[in-house]
Amino acid sequence: MHQFSRAILEKKQQEPKVKRRLHFYARGEQIPLVAQGVWEVDEGRVQLSTLSPEGEEIWLGWAESSAFFGNWFSVLSSYQAIALTDVRLKWYSLAEINNSPYIAQTILPQLVRRMRQTEILLAISGQRRVEVRLQHLLLLLKREVGEPVPEGIRIGMRLTHQDLANAIGTTRVTVTRLLTKFKNEGAITVDSVRHIILKHDSFTNVADW
Amino acid sequence: MHQFSRAILEKKQQEPKVKRRLHFYARGEQIPLVAQGVWEVDEGRVQLSTLSPEGEEIWLGWAESSAFFGNWFSVLSSYQAIALTDVRLKWYSLAEINNSPYIAQTILPQLVRRMRQTEILLAISGQRRVEVRLQHLLLLLKREVGEPVPEGIRIGMRLTHQDLANAIGTTRVTVTRLLTKFKNEGAITVDSVRHIILKHDSFTNVADW
Repeated sequence: MHQFSRAILEKKQQEPKVKRRLHFYARGEQIPLVAQGVWEVDEGRVQLSTLSPEGEEIWLGWAESSAFFGNWFSVLSSYQAIALTDVRLKWYSLAEINNSPYIAQTILPQLVRRMRQTEILLAISGQRRVEVRLQHLLLLLKREVGEPVPEGIRIGMRLTHQDLANAIGTTRVTVTRLLTKFKNEGAITVDSVRHIILKHDSFTNVADW
Repeated sequence: MHQFSRAILEKKQQEPKVKRRLHFYARGEQIPLVAQGVWEVDEGRVQLSTLSPEGEEIWLGWAESSAFFGNWFSVLSSYQAIALTDVRLKWYSLAEINNSPYIAQTILPQLVRRMRQTEILLAISGQRRVEVRLQHLLLLLKREVGEPVPEGIRIGMRLTHQDLANAIGTTRVTVTRLLTKFKNEGAITVDSVRHIILKHDSFTNVADW
């Protein structure tokens, strides 16, 4: 993967420079998704989700710096993208992607990254035990958006108990109960701005698929 | 998407012809996955899955003609690929993908296809009601592997009730009960070789996300 990324970088330098306009969305805003193209995240983080017929949010993953997202990658009509932070985005039309093998080669490893993330969320949702699902989700968040702090790895996203419940298909009450259990067991702590911090050796029993 | 595929085809003709050796696997065989490359399905169908810590199979989707699959797309260590039919595969090394923007441009729309499929499976697993999950799964199978027959659309894959149960995270007993209900309601029939046939207007209540 590392070798691959370096080659892509070299390729990118061969590509004629295209000055792309940046599009800004503030934290909490819904990002418009149109069929003729895709967004690349230049800075910030975007939450991707869909709604169940009952109106419950179902997490489909998230896109961070260099990641691509958009309707092209989805057939779900209620697909939505919400800015988790202030974000800066770049736009690519499908015609452009079509005409430039270099753009395709840039998008490919980023789509591989999203594919892996989506697949892990799918594998998590297939776990029968809710406790194991939540442990796996916290480990995924640790790896994807973790920031080292003295006590362990801080999950760099503010998540409500309801967010976590939506992500693993359970209720807010169950998430609250399990997080209290994890705190009592010393596996996690919560900092002053309500970010979850995982101890370095937390959940090692479920770390391996 | 259609326009995109045509352009890819034209691009492919520019690419120097590489004669690829075909690899054959018989129905039921496990296909070896190695880190240095990916497989393309030339003919047949491959089931992709992982195992939960309890040893239960979790569906991650499947790969059909022209689709790519392999460890590169996954971080799950228990990822496995099983031939659902006799299959013919072609091998691409990561170094090749790396060096050829044309190969990247060939893989990209195929990975988009797998991304969409995985995302739908994720959205299905996020549905609270098991009955709705099964209806959505049958609609997905109808679209992906459906074959028109006089009575409706036949799902061109032989699936045990346990397979369906694994795909939507429920028990075999529940699947059997729900399929009997769908049969009684006239939404599905089962043919002489145990393939499920969906009536044209089945499950229209859940058809839209």
